[in-house]
Amino acid sequence: MTEEKILLDHGSGGKVSHSMFSDIILPLFENPELSKQDDGATLDIDGAKLAFSTDSYVVDPIFFPGGNIGDLAVNGTINDISMCGAIPKFISVGLIIEEGLSIKDLKSILETMATAAKKAGVKIVTGDTKVVPRGKADKIFINTSGIGVIPDNVEVSGHNAKPGDKIIVSGTIADHGITVLSSREGLKFDSDIKTDSAPLNHMVQSIVQSDCDVHVLRDPTRGGLGTTLNEIAVQSQVGIKIDEQSLPIRGAVQGTCELLGFDPLYIANEGKLIAFVKPEDAQKALEIIQQDEFGKDAVIIGEVIDETPGKVFLQTAIGGSRIVDMLTGEQLPRIC
Amino acid sequence: MTEEKILLDHGSGGKVSHSMFSDIILPLFENPELSKQDDGATLDIDGAKLAFSTDSYVVDPIFFPGGNIGDLAVNGTINDISMCGAIPKFISVGLIIEEGLSIKDLKSILETMATAAKKAGVKIVTGDTKVVPRGKADKIFINTSGIGVIPDNVEVSGHNAKPGDKIIVSGTIADHGITVLSSREGLKFDSDIKTDSAPLNHMVQSIVQSDCDVHVLRDPTRGGLGTTLNEIAVQSQVGIKIDEQSLPIRGAVQGTCELLGFDPLYIANEGKLIAFVKPEDAQKALEIIQQDEFGKDAVIIGEVIDETPGKVFLQTAIGGSRIVDMLTGEQLPRIC
Repeated sequence: MTEEKILLDHGSGGKVSHSMFSDIILPLFENPELSKQDDGATLDIDGAKLAFSTDSYVVDPIFFPGGNIGDLAVNGTINDISMCGAIPKFISVGLIIEEGLSIKDLKSILETMATAAKKAGVKIVTGDTKVVPRGKADKIFINTSGIGVIPDNVEVSGHNAKPGDKIIVSGTIADHGITVLSSREGLKFDSDIKTDSAPLNHMVQSIVQSDCDVHVLRDPTRGGLGTTLNEIAVQSQVGIKIDEQSLPIRGAVQGTCELLGFDPLYIANEGKLIAFVKPEDAQKALEIIQQDEFGKDAVIIGEVIDETPGKVFLQTAIGGSRIVDMLTGEQLPRIC
Repeated sequence: MTEEKILLDHGSGGKVSHSMFSDIILPLFENPELSKQDDGATLDIDGAKLAFSTDSYVVDPIFFPGGNIGDLAVNGTINDISMCGAIPKFISVGLIIEEGLSIKDLKSILETMATAAKKAGVKIVTGDTKVVPRGKADKIFINTSGIGVIPDNVEVSGHNAKPGDKIIVSGTIADHGITVLSSREGLKFDSDIKTDSAPLNHMVQSIVQSDCDVHVLRDPTRGGLGTTLNEIAVQSQVGIKIDEQSLPIRGAVQGTCELLGFDPLYIANEGKLIAFVKPEDAQKALEIIQQDEFGKDAVIIGEVIDETPGKVFLQTAIGGSRIVDMLTGEQLPRIC
């Protein structure tokens, strides 16, 4: 018997990642906060309701059109906190740097982190720097963790989807993943696409502080929209039906996907959210999202159905219907 | 002009690390929480007083006598939170795994993390796993971030040292660094030393909840006792005098240091703290520390003096006195 090893798939955010979490991690650390499996944990500390989240960034290359690993890391944790309905307040930064990184590059990265934090109104309050010898890491890895405050009466969770809920996506999908892929050595090709990396905290507060009944918020990062919808279908034990023709995809992104054989449903986004909203409130919630600077292209893409719990269906452009599974395998390593 | 690059020194925790923090990081992110430069940030959230800290672990090898990268990472963040006077409550875990790590090793690491968290009474509530291709990291890197609650009336900080304060160290120094070094390929030699990695949260609460007047708590990790004392001398603008003969060092550790030319004052500890206590309360605080399971070897090693602000002096065994500077250069890369 050969020894079992960690594969790239274990970090895909898709099926193998989920199995590892369920089979290895959850049984060891079981507690109510972790078991919820939302983008962050919701905590009750001395009466304050907080959200707490962590993410490590290992994107390759570290600079790409529209951003770099630094603002990606700041926006990513801001968004994970936001998807708990929380207002992100404080962020920590852990740098693991490969010996030999140019100080100029480090400064550029840190500058964009400072700018991203400022734009979102969060403070970077604590940090740590480790340096490993050349060849023992790849340029720079960044961990960001964050704390947010959950306003009274806000309760969103992947467990709260209800049959009838309309599903809104806040803009075009697959921009980030295709941008990073297009920037890799040997794959460079002309295109005007850029990462969608953006802070969604203000958009989220506009929705949750409105009188719209929002049940679920989630940002479809690693694993893409297809995987995230599957997670919610399982967490809430509902079926989900989305309409292929309604999916907002930029022409250049769609073209690249076709050229390289990728399904945009599984490509990472870094500045988009999906919101599950009570049907009566869906149109209003959509308009609120569209008013946000990062939500102009928001559309309703589907709804929650009462049948087939745990399954996601896509109504295709030609009138058929197919199951959308979680990502299997690893399409694009080191996309975030 | 050659381009400036990141060197191992930048991650030493010593002089070059401090310059990078002061020259590059602090000006970009300046805010009152970060500027304090304690082991964690102290935050006021909705009336709750919290401590927040982060650390990445890149230790090599990942298994060593007495522990592994997993419990090191959990205890490390527990201790950073504790040094703010806080009771650590919640921890996040960010794994960066090199493709090819054996699942058996990963399980061992995660199991010791769960055990360490349980022992300290903290919950691991949120996490993230990334996998990078073989050769792009070294086995596994772990980030832990943590949140703790600061009890009312507790206020400790590196800024609070006062002339006259007695300085207590909670046990033998340099155990962790010398253990890891001794475990490296090519350097293995027989010895019964093991890491001192341990959670100090209960010890800290026993001291701060007593009626002893504790001004500073700090765990002398990277850079060792010598560097940590320098940090406090600078933060509080006081002088510090320590007595060489009082320093608790195991024979095997002292012997290895002499053999390899290391100064134990600059070798990392992972389960020790130093406490600066009002002189009248010092004996009582010492006894409280000695009653803790990780404080049996605690001793008073020196005091704060009214002269030479920012400087640390060592009274040598032969009656002389020498300046103890911060660590310059990097003695032992990847020690934590």
